[in-house]
Amino acid sequence: MSSTRIERDAFGPVEIPADRYWGAQTQRALGVFDIGEERFPASLIHAFGLQKMAAARANMRCGALDAALADAIISAAGELRDGGFDAHFPLTIWQTGSGTQTNMNANEVIANRANELLGQPLGTKSPVHPNDHVNASQSSNDSFPTVMHIVTVLELAQRLKPSLALLRDSLQEKAEAFEDVLKIARTHLMDAVPMTMGRVFDTFARQVAHGIDRIDAAMPRLLSLPQGGTAAGTGLNAPPGFDALFCEELRALTGHAFTPNPSKFEGMAAHDALVEASGALNVIATSLIKIANDVRWLGSGPRCGLGELKIPDDGLTSSIMPGKRNPTIAEVLAQACMQVVGNHAVVTMANASGNFELNVAKPVLIANLLQSIRVLADASRVFATGLVQGVEVEEARLAANVANSLLLATALNPVLGYDKVASITAEAVAKGITPREAALSLGLIDGETYDRIVDARKMAGR
Amino acid sequence: MSSTRIERDAFGPVEIPADRYWGAQTQRALGVFDIGEERFPASLIHAFGLQKMAAARANMRCGALDAALADAIISAAGELRDGGFDAHFPLTIWQTGSGTQTNMNANEVIANRANELLGQPLGTKSPVHPNDHVNASQSSNDSFPTVMHIVTVLELAQRLKPSLALLRDSLQEKAEAFEDVLKIARTHLMDAVPMTMGRVFDTFARQVAHGIDRIDAAMPRLLSLPQGGTAAGTGLNAPPGFDALFCEELRALTGHAFTPNPSKFEGMAAHDALVEASGALNVIATSLIKIANDVRWLGSGPRCGLGELKIPDDGLTSSIMPGKRNPTIAEVLAQACMQVVGNHAVVTMANASGNFELNVAKPVLIANLLQSIRVLADASRVFATGLVQGVEVEEARLAANVANSLLLATALNPVLGYDKVASITAEAVAKGITPREAALSLGLIDGETYDRIVDARKMAGR
Amino acid sequence: MSSTRIERDAFGPVEIPADRYWGAQTQRALGVFDIGEERFPASLIHAFGLQKMAAARANMRCGALDAALADAIISAAGELRDGGFDAHFPLTIWQTGSGTQTNMNANEVIANRANELLGQPLGTKSPVHPNDHVNASQSSNDSFPTVMHIVTVLELAQRLKPSLALLRDSLQEKAEAFEDVLKIARTHLMDAVPMTMGRVFDTFARQVAHGIDRIDAAMPRLLSLPQGGTAAGTGLNAPPGFDALFCEELRALTGHAFTPNPSKFEGMAAHDALVEASGALNVIATSLIKIANDVRWLGSGPRCGLGELKIPDDGLTSSIMPGKRNPTIAEVLAQACMQVVGNHAVVTMANASGNFELNVAKPVLIANLLQSIRVLADASRVFATGLVQGVEVEEARLAANVANSLLLATALNPVLGYDKVASITAEAVAKGITPREAALSLGLIDGETYDRIVDARKMAGR
Amino acid sequence: MSSTRIERDAFGPVEIPADRYWGAQTQRALGVFDIGEERFPASLIHAFGLQKMAAARANMRCGALDAALADAIISAAGELRDGGFDAHFPLTIWQTGSGTQTNMNANEVIANRANELLGQPLGTKSPVHPNDHVNASQSSNDSFPTVMHIVTVLELAQRLKPSLALLRDSLQEKAEAFEDVLKIARTHLMDAVPMTMGRVFDTFARQVAHGIDRIDAAMPRLLSLPQGGTAAGTGLNAPPGFDALFCEELRALTGHAFTPNPSKFEGMAAHDALVEASGALNVIATSLIKIANDVRWLGSGPRCGLGELKIPDDGLTSSIMPGKRNPTIAEVLAQACMQVVGNHAVVTMANASGNFELNVAKPVLIANLLQSIRVLADASRVFATGLVQGVEVEEARLAANVANSLLLATALNPVLGYDKVASITAEAVAKGITPREAALSLGLIDGETYDRIVDARKMAGR
Repeated sequence: MSSTRIERDAFGPVEIPADRYWGAQTQRALGVFDIGEERFPASLIHAFGLQKMAAARANMRCGALDAALADAIISAAGELRDGGFDAHFPLTIWQTGSGTQTNMNANEVIANRANELLGQPLGTKSPVHPNDHVNASQSSNDSFPTVMHIVTVLELAQRLKPSLALLRDSLQEKAEAFEDVLKIARTHLMDAVPMTMGRVFDTFARQVAHGIDRIDAAMPRLLSLPQGGTAAGTGLNAPPGFDALFCEELRALTGHAFTPNPSKFEGMAAHDALVEASGALNVIATSLIKIANDVRWLGSGPRCGLGELKIPDDGLTSSIMPGKRNPTIAEVLAQACMQVVGNHAVVTMANASGNFELNVAKPVLIANLLQSIRVLADASRVFATGLVQGVEVEEARLAANVANSLLLATALNPVLGYDKVASITAEAVAKGITPREAALSLGLIDGETYDRIVDARKMAGR
Repeated sequence: MSSTRIERDAFGPVEIPADRYWGAQTQRALGVFDIGEERFPASLIHAFGLQKMAAARANMRCGALDAALADAIISAAGELRDGGFDAHFPLTIWQTGSGTQTNMNANEVIANRANELLGQPLGTKSPVHPNDHVNASQSSNDSFPTVMHIVTVLELAQRLKPSLALLRDSLQEKAEAFEDVLKIARTHLMDAVPMTMGRVFDTFARQVAHGIDRIDAAMPRLLSLPQGGTAAGTGLNAPPGFDALFCEELRALTGHAFTPNPSKFEGMAAHDALVEASGALNVIATSLIKIANDVRWLGSGPRCGLGELKIPDDGLTSSIMPGKRNPTIAEVLAQACMQVVGNHAVVTMANASGNFELNVAKPVLIANLLQSIRVLADASRVFATGLVQGVEVEEARLAANVANSLLLATALNPVLGYDKVASITAEAVAKGITPREAALSLGLIDGETYDRIVDARKMAGR
Repeated sequence: MSSTRIERDAFGPVEIPADRYWGAQTQRALGVFDIGEERFPASLIHAFGLQKMAAARANMRCGALDAALADAIISAAGELRDGGFDAHFPLTIWQTGSGTQTNMNANEVIANRANELLGQPLGTKSPVHPNDHVNASQSSNDSFPTVMHIVTVLELAQRLKPSLALLRDSLQEKAEAFEDVLKIARTHLMDAVPMTMGRVFDTFARQVAHGIDRIDAAMPRLLSLPQGGTAAGTGLNAPPGFDALFCEELRALTGHAFTPNPSKFEGMAAHDALVEASGALNVIATSLIKIANDVRWLGSGPRCGLGELKIPDDGLTSSIMPGKRNPTIAEVLAQACMQVVGNHAVVTMANASGNFELNVAKPVLIANLLQSIRVLADASRVFATGLVQGVEVEEARLAANVANSLLLATALNPVLGYDKVASITAEAVAKGITPREAALSLGLIDGETYDRIVDARKMAGR
Repeated sequence: MSSTRIERDAFGPVEIPADRYWGAQTQRALGVFDIGEERFPASLIHAFGLQKMAAARANMRCGALDAALADAIISAAGELRDGGFDAHFPLTIWQTGSGTQTNMNANEVIANRANELLGQPLGTKSPVHPNDHVNASQSSNDSFPTVMHIVTVLELAQRLKPSLALLRDSLQEKAEAFEDVLKIARTHLMDAVPMTMGRVFDTFARQVAHGIDRIDAAMPRLLSLPQGGTAAGTGLNAPPGFDALFCEELRALTGHAFTPNPSKFEGMAAHDALVEASGALNVIATSLIKIANDVRWLGSGPRCGLGELKIPDDGLTSSIMPGKRNPTIAEVLAQACMQVVGNHAVVTMANASGNFELNVAKPVLIANLLQSIRVLADASRVFATGLVQGVEVEEARLAANVANSLLLATALNPVLGYDKVASITAEAVAKGITPREAALSLGLIDGETYDRIVDARKMAGR
């Protein structure tokens, strides 16, 4: 570990740990940016592998890169994609706003590995040069935002959407299981009319299903890539057609329908598409906070709360109150969603901060977006498997609540009119009796008619 | 003004100004909620007119409302829609979270006006009763969120989208007018390679165009209405098919493709669709902040700034520095967009706060969303007509900048390689000379080849 | 209304409604900024009156203004302060980021009124000129931010703090009234150990009391004024000592300890002090959301909820469920607080957006801050008088909950150890019995010892 | 690594890696919460060491803990404080909202280590039991929020304040170095009147100095600790006076003036004090974004920008434009501040989400607050040392700007009046001449008087 080698860049020589594949610009950046501990997730490094593979293939097809060099670059980048060099990306997200240092880190690691594959020691920069060959026809200006889009698409497709689908299906199963379980609805937290517990879970399931639709709605603009824009979006030094070839190769590598953004400038100067995606996550976060809270509240008690749901035990308990069971997973989900809402504020501010041809808040923007996707996906999955799938109803409590409720009388509105029904409810409250007793004692209706009209099951639509 | 009449509700008599059409519940609410000055925009009151018209027509078709009463209600509600009763909605937005008081206000005004049309004095509640007839087959629970959707759809379609289209077209015209005007691109605020001013405005226009797409992407879920859910989403006391008839009538009245939400619960318990719409506005706000700032910066000076654009005079000036011209309209646009970003935080938090069958932050949610639409629409329109359409280029400054720029040398990368070009730039900086002079003095290239390769116009893709 | 007069400024003649006191720059601004409906609250206009009074007095003392002109200006500005010209400020907040148009509006109204007092018709600009005399030794650059500070200090002191004090006292009265009312505490929404309802309200009262402290903590920096900075903070054209005299006069007029900011630049280029004040409101908003929600939840029911508090009737009810009572005022308070949180995001972004010597998001910043103060003050007052002061406990429900609770057994920890107490709780849950029954049946303790140790009143510290 | 031991808790046996010091509840939590990668910073683990040391000492003094056990616990907790067990805290922040799992993790690690010190193997839970002894007189309910306060105080005092002080001093040094360097002020981004570069940096320094004041203003409420509240704030099972002894011991250990919160409930049910601290960071973030941006803009160019400052080279460059130097460190600082603003939104929402006796968003709240402190501290330090300390002025450009500026004429206002000065500026713009030439050609003043009054140095107050 203590042995080092010397690499050189335009500014002179730099000492680098001998067993690390990064090069001079990465090493310099380490010295400049001694800030925080937050690193990009491995998924972003892997997406850089994909991007460099696709670029090398496209360069070869354009004639911008010799086949032998291209092959070595493609092999090395493939190892990057597959996780082989995660430990060679030492920088935190706190770097230049263009992500240049991480792009250079990728260029340097791939160049060193490609040269090694071609029989050269680390640090030669020859025959494969990090800028002239690995970065050929590219700039950080276009490569980094292209990677931002690639990793977002992959993470949404492979991580978040499956978790949300699992959650939706788990909720829907409970909707079906509870479709005949009557309960009292609550508006303003106050007792309202009868409904079923199935409807509660069906509503949750629909919210999650719409959340998936919202992700899909943002996809067209996420699939549009600025690669080919090179310096500032001009396309300088990229061969004609490079952008289309790049996307063709990337489609082959990923199976996702990436296409060239017709305006490279648009894809580099601003990241509206990523704010849009974050906005979809923000909606999902509000849906899931609501769901997590409803589940917590319906499961509150066990003896002094609402007590309508039984949340499965997770084996965790209080450090002072022995035997206390808490809805820990619902709390985790709510917290994860709060993080998503705050991250959305960062993403929004980062995008609003751009000037001219290059937004320079890219690292903080993508790091927040990827964290949102990850924690939303993980927390949704754990909520589905650890809580929803095991949730049960407390039938006795539910039935007692339905029997007790004052607002069953609402069903009499079409027969008696609003004002008379109000007098029934007032009487029931005043005397502490049921609305049926009140209606009869006020002489407004006979018992048989009451029972025909005021039928909780019918009122709940079952 | 000082004369009053007495109206009654379930809680007893209430004194009301004689010339006002509202009733007892509105008057009580005025006493309870003495908070702030913020009122719903007239557009929401008018949307209530539409909602009550469509409901009365649907009720009549279902047989839930007598034709004579329905006709009077439809006439009165039509007057509401047309702005005839704006002065009869005295409540602020600071009311119950279901919007019940504004729904009751609408019910009461329409009932009083309908009774008046039928020859009765104000306050009779007969033959048209505000709850039994105007609110027939409805609840505040479903009517208010239905109105939230209606007014959002109408305001987006009639107010925001036309303003954004105007702005997009104004920007596109400038993109064409400036398509041959060379300028130096800037990344990290630093001089980069040549591009055209046309591309700058084209990028802006594309951002705005995508903004319109983002509004359209949210529309399907906005067009889905919870009307028919009545109490808590159960549909209690609404005739079968009422929801579909309501939407049919509303489509006829508005020309927009409203449809019943298959789950009324989903449309009342949460307002995910409105958060989604607000998210689209949030993206647009970040786009427009970026555009407003770029325009301000490019127009900065006149003598000590970037000075590449000439912003049209607006006749306003400093109170102490005579003759000073400021980019006032760009500042307004940026401020309006900040409001939209903050309002999005309110909308997000409001939606996350819901419990069980009814979100009770509806008034603050819709008021913020409508304000966002309004100020974004107005500010975009004023920015288009008052600034963009009159903006001109400062050709002398632009040309001098292009001639001066160091990074023209980037075009030499494919010929000389990255490291040699770096030495040219370093030499030019060190000696204060042009990159051409540096390249020649370092003997790296001859003048003729240099001029062939380093051609700003070609680099800018013209 | 249709008759007009002509006024002139550096850009030429402008037609103005004959009965309006504003002048040419205001009229031009009306034409430029046709955006939204949001106007500054009257409190800001009144604060401009104070600022112009203090400036005129300071100018007279410096010899920068002739006594006769100064007197006329002071009289006219006094009328502004007292609300006499509210209808003569037609501009919305959507104007230049320096607030110049509203400063010019104040200058023009005061000049016209002063000239009128001196026997001249409107529009003469003589002997009192809006820029040379009313704005003497000032710029919008320093006057507008000075007014931002003045109005914030006054609104906090006169509007918000009294409302919070009332709320704190109302909560504290209930804390005392309920100090012997036992209840079960809830952590994670789940039943925990016994406490008193008095503690619940005492905790609320402390949060509000700390909120007042937080406002006070921000005051020193709010009292520091940039007046005297004139153009860009340089103090150009202001006589030496003008800043100190201005603050002296303002202290005399208001009774608040305003002092000159030693760096005028700091007070104009950024509004950190106002973000700090908004941050205090943001804390208070989170406190009050928590309080409003706890009250709503404790009052939920009446039959299927927690039902531990009885919230006073407000005479408002559901439009479909007759007799339904909802915690409307708690919902209003929560919504007002969400607005404050969103406004804080606007204030934050507005301050972060500044460049160089002048922040140009002043109007949107101060409008949001003043709205936060207003709605927080009003909603707190209504919550205190309309809800807290009338709240009562539901003793039967509270007592039943205490008797029922499992976690009374926690008091046995020091005697039996955590693990044995856990087995008692588990047994009680499994058998549906009380923890006392479980402890005895497991033979872990005798009844007498149990009763001595497990005493809910003692556990609650009474 | 593959060998394991068995530990037991109330729920049964659990398999744990043999060389890890955590116990059954931690291992169970690992299985339950498979979410994300975010871990608490080591500073929070170390603060837990301090908290358990102080608690054990207080317990011993109260007689609640045997001296031999207390000594072992104190030794083990001391090792925790010193970083000896960082690798034994495997949980992410995504756990129960009370932080119970991390408190139990600390209890278990300390119990195991204490037992080891007393000659027992890992997993015995005897003689030192994690709940009965390490957690004696405590609950997660009070210990975790106490740790939240301790770590916040230490991180603010030891990490953030020194960084801000360094930045303030670095800025102040430049303020002095540049105090005679004239420049043109800019308002609305447009050229205004002369000032000095010293004032620019002095303003920055003052903003940072006020930032430190803002942290100090939040300290009193941060130093107030809920320790002693145990379950739900009741103090159940904690000996009388435990809270005061705990704070006494903690003061001795840390040198910070911690005191018992008179209401334990207030310190557990809500985290208003932490939102207040986050609010201070939010203000600082807006100050630093402004500073970072001003520096970036003043350093923009080198040939086509404002070019008034020379930002020191950091050895990093573009991947495509050789020789390009970018203000990387300023971009990092701005990005770090955006993170702080977004984290503030999380902290705010987390605090607003609380119910009843225990806020259950503690982990996400404290993780965001600690990240804000860390990145703000690190980025401020790097900005001070890597940028501010090396920044230089571009004197030629500054002087040319001053000579060129139109608004020097503002100094003539007191002599000529606003309207005549406006005509001078207009003439200078129209003819492209200097204001001096314009003033003379209009015959409004003679050259000698002009030069006496319009003196840039005097106008800038030098």
